[in-house]
Amino acid sequence: MSSLILFTPAGVLAQAQPLKRAAKRLQSLGFSVEIDASALARHQRFGGDDEVRLEALHRVARAAPDVALATRGGYGLTRLLDRIDWSLIAHSAEHGTHWVGQSDLTALQLGLLAHTKGISWAGPLACDDFGRADADGGVDEITRDCFLEAMDGSLEAVGFRESLAPRGQTPHDGLEARGLLWGGNLTVLCSLLGTPHFPKVKGGILFLEDVNEHPYRVERMLLQLQQAGVLDAQKAVLLGAFSAWKKSPLDRGYDLKAAISAVQSRTRTPLLGGLPFGHVPTKVCLPVGAKVELVVQGREVLLAWGHDAHRGHEH
Amino acid sequence: MSSLILFTPAGVLAQAQPLKRAAKRLQSLGFSVEIDASALARHQRFGGDDEVRLEALHRVARAAPDVALATRGGYGLTRLLDRIDWSLIAHSAEHGTHWVGQSDLTALQLGLLAHTKGISWAGPLACDDFGRADADGGVDEITRDCFLEAMDGSLEAVGFRESLAPRGQTPHDGLEARGLLWGGNLTVLCSLLGTPHFPKVKGGILFLEDVNEHPYRVERMLLQLQQAGVLDAQKAVLLGAFSAWKKSPLDRGYDLKAAISAVQSRTRTPLLGGLPFGHVPTKVCLPVGAKVELVVQGREVLLAWGHDAHRGHEH
Repeated sequence: MSSLILFTPAGVLAQAQPLKRAAKRLQSLGFSVEIDASALARHQRFGGDDEVRLEALHRVARAAPDVALATRGGYGLTRLLDRIDWSLIAHSAEHGTHWVGQSDLTALQLGLLAHTKGISWAGPLACDDFGRADADGGVDEITRDCFLEAMDGSLEAVGFRESLAPRGQTPHDGLEARGLLWGGNLTVLCSLLGTPHFPKVKGGILFLEDVNEHPYRVERMLLQLQQAGVLDAQKAVLLGAFSAWKKSPLDRGYDLKAAISAVQSRTRTPLLGGLPFGHVPTKVCLPVGAKVELVVQGREVLLAWGHDAHRGHEH
Repeated sequence: MSSLILFTPAGVLAQAQPLKRAAKRLQSLGFSVEIDASALARHQRFGGDDEVRLEALHRVARAAPDVALATRGGYGLTRLLDRIDWSLIAHSAEHGTHWVGQSDLTALQLGLLAHTKGISWAGPLACDDFGRADADGGVDEITRDCFLEAMDGSLEAVGFRESLAPRGQTPHDGLEARGLLWGGNLTVLCSLLGTPHFPKVKGGILFLEDVNEHPYRVERMLLQLQQAGVLDAQKAVLLGAFSAWKKSPLDRGYDLKAAISAVQSRTRTPLLGGLPFGHVPTKVCLPVGAKVELVVQGREVLLAWGHDAHRGHEH
């Protein structure tokens, strides 16, 4: 039976109910679930003050469960980055701990990659996904199954249909690329630029998603990555969901498509859409820091990694 | 009579009325006002497409008026940064053109500083300030007078009352610092980090403001600057207004004060509040790229520059 610890490294849990539901559901899925001692701690908008959350992170790393699943994102990891014992986190990952989460967890995952080349998993969050009430649809089946396969080591690829190309066109047909998979939440990733916590990946496959960000803000961040030389240094960029933004009367036809088009016109690196990932119910699990192979046939995109991804840190 | 051109380098003007009011009001204040040919151009959410806005910038630089005042901010300069003829802008600034604006104009001002060490002016925007209808209070008197003095070369200092220290305390009493003044909108400034358009200023005086950004986002950006080594490299940080953000039920006591306190605890560089600048009616004019002297007596802060600031580029 796989051991799984639920911990809160960033934002506070406003209620205990989603955490209880997540624990129960994960238990029924076959995990031996433990709730970290400070998972429900509260300090202002944080799941405990900085000391409490830092200690939780290190406690989970020392316990080295099979799965370390964050309860939710929010904001908070930025405050800890300069103080995290990266080798402790990396050591657990090398010995089999799958660190899983998304959103603010991007800061942890990219920091781990930058400091130790350690592998972690972009994927669901306990409360947002496994804690969703049955009345609200419960946990998405693809999200659940993909998580289960990623955690037991059997998931070695994800496939999706490219969504940006106009109907009937297949501009990326035949594209093949190998490189390091990295990325996560665009805002959080950009908030690491210029700091020691930003991984310097050349020839990689970068995946990005965001929520509540107007397309002009998404465009500004992507152009920052382009102007910083990050986009041009990648072999491909995979775009997940950019959800929950609100139109403005000033847009006058400007939308996410226009934003992506403006970015694509400034880089030769292909931008592909349709990755099932982000602040949406259906999300795959992706090994951040693993070597992957990208293959496009027509509009079908396959992103595959070897068994290596499950071994943690690459020696 | 000073010549003044109104131009639109970023967001579209939804209506012509504020521009007309601004032109009329600036005329009555003694300027010979010209409205740039594409000031009312429209392309999606932009004041003309990229070519149109880039050409407008260069046209204004070639015309080299006494004052080049942006109509509004919004979003758009990021798209032009890699293509702006910086030496053309710098040449006009050296020969007396005061480039004035704020918000998205921060990208132009910091790019100019990064590429040429040229001086520009953080200050009002034509439509937002001089275009405000009398029914809405018209132009703020301090903003107007400060602008007039900055443009005619007589403004050599601004003073304000420090706002962050608890009542009765004067933690910065006696602080004196000299350095390069730079800064602007925090979001726009951070969007330049890691790119060639970010000025590498050591020992400077950094000023910052923002609008519509929740304190946790302000904190995240300030921590990015801290982790990138930018805050520690400055002699002081002056905080203007951080306006129009909305509280969240998750805040639980977290606010702008908590955010600033979290940042101050991580840097020795003093953070001072109360600078009358930002997305608020009352704003001073500040010479971006000029050498300034900061003096604090009790809670009174004086930021002074020599006549140099008005000569433009320093030789």
